[in-house]
Amino acid sequence: MNIPSSMPPGVAFLSGQFTAENGIKKITRCGDLSGVFYDRAAWQAIPVDTPVYRVEMLRSPQGEGELFVGITHLQPGRVGDEFYMTRGHFHQRREQGEVYFGLRGTGLLLLQNEQGVARLEQISPGSVHIIPGFTAHRLINTGSEVLSALAVWPSVAGHDYAALAHGFALRVIEQDGKIQAKEVQHG
Amino acid sequence: MNIPSSMPPGVAFLSGQFTAENGIKKITRCGDLSGVFYDRAAWQAIPVDTPVYRVEMLRSPQGEGELFVGITHLQPGRVGDEFYMTRGHFHQRREQGEVYFGLRGTGLLLLQNEQGVARLEQISPGSVHIIPGFTAHRLINTGSEVLSALAVWPSVAGHDYAALAHGFALRVIEQDGKIQAKEVQHG
Repeated sequence: MNIPSSMPPGVAFLSGQFTAENGIKKITRCGDLSGVFYDRAAWQAIPVDTPVYRVEMLRSPQGEGELFVGITHLQPGRVGDEFYMTRGHFHQRREQGEVYFGLRGTGLLLLQNEQGVARLEQISPGSVHIIPGFTAHRLINTGSEVLSALAVWPSVAGHDYAALAHGFALRVIEQDGKIQAKEVQHG
Repeated sequence: MNIPSSMPPGVAFLSGQFTAENGIKKITRCGDLSGVFYDRAAWQAIPVDTPVYRVEMLRSPQGEGELFVGITHLQPGRVGDEFYMTRGHFHQRREQGEVYFGLRGTGLLLLQNEQGVARLEQISPGSVHIIPGFTAHRLINTGSEVLSALAVWPSVAGHDYAALAHGFALRVIEQDGKIQAKEVQHG
């Protein structure tokens, strides 16, 4: 290309890696996830500094209408019989949606509306998840490799973790060698 | 997966195809692009029903905060010495941004702000383009294969084609076997 043009950041769809150098990175460790997994004894038995997931974000302008791009890498593993998962959240601005694309690994996207109705979507490389507004979302890694998902969401969305501090209405566990979902009341 | 879960739509990142059956499709043909290419005689010499680009969109909820997902497939070709391109637009809601991901082929994303300042970003498989609000955008296929780009944008953004009816401030042409950008006053 022999004309003035810039090379934007990139994403390797297969490996789930950004090529950008100046992204923002945040690691969430087991010790950060107090109250998230139902088996507290199993959670306490895991070293607090064990990484559970890592989020990388590109730098974006911020403000009404602007969009963020990020990738979440969720490790495989379990706390007791419950699969590793992200904390999960509603957006602070409840009407703001989000889009996820599965890049690597396999898992489930747990969605829950404000009435407490939960559902699961299967995540695999290339899966497209259109998360409507007013819908909490959590990634669950049910596979044996890292689950990586690319996300696009409005910069004004914000995060509200408090609304689901008692958990989602479904938990995903391994029981008798099978992936099972169990309904819970106060997660 | 032996639990109640749904299989979402998918995108094949390498081929740029959606696997969803119920998407929305729109083809834009040469005859639809009156006034877009500067060489009117060359444009008139092309059969009006020649496909230039095709957009596929997934079904999304609509409303403030909701996001659309679509793929644009732009054919390779030229009108005179000017590369095939999309019409390009500002969003009707000017503050609303958009994100493009290059999937297949090579080209340029032409961006122009409301002050008329234009710039180009190189598109290639995996390139990530964070289009800020208040920024018009147009895809240009400078390669020899189909250029496919995945886009995520707010459902309320809308399209304003009229604001750039006289064209963008840059045109991308092939001259002496090279890709060249030329600045223009009234496109």
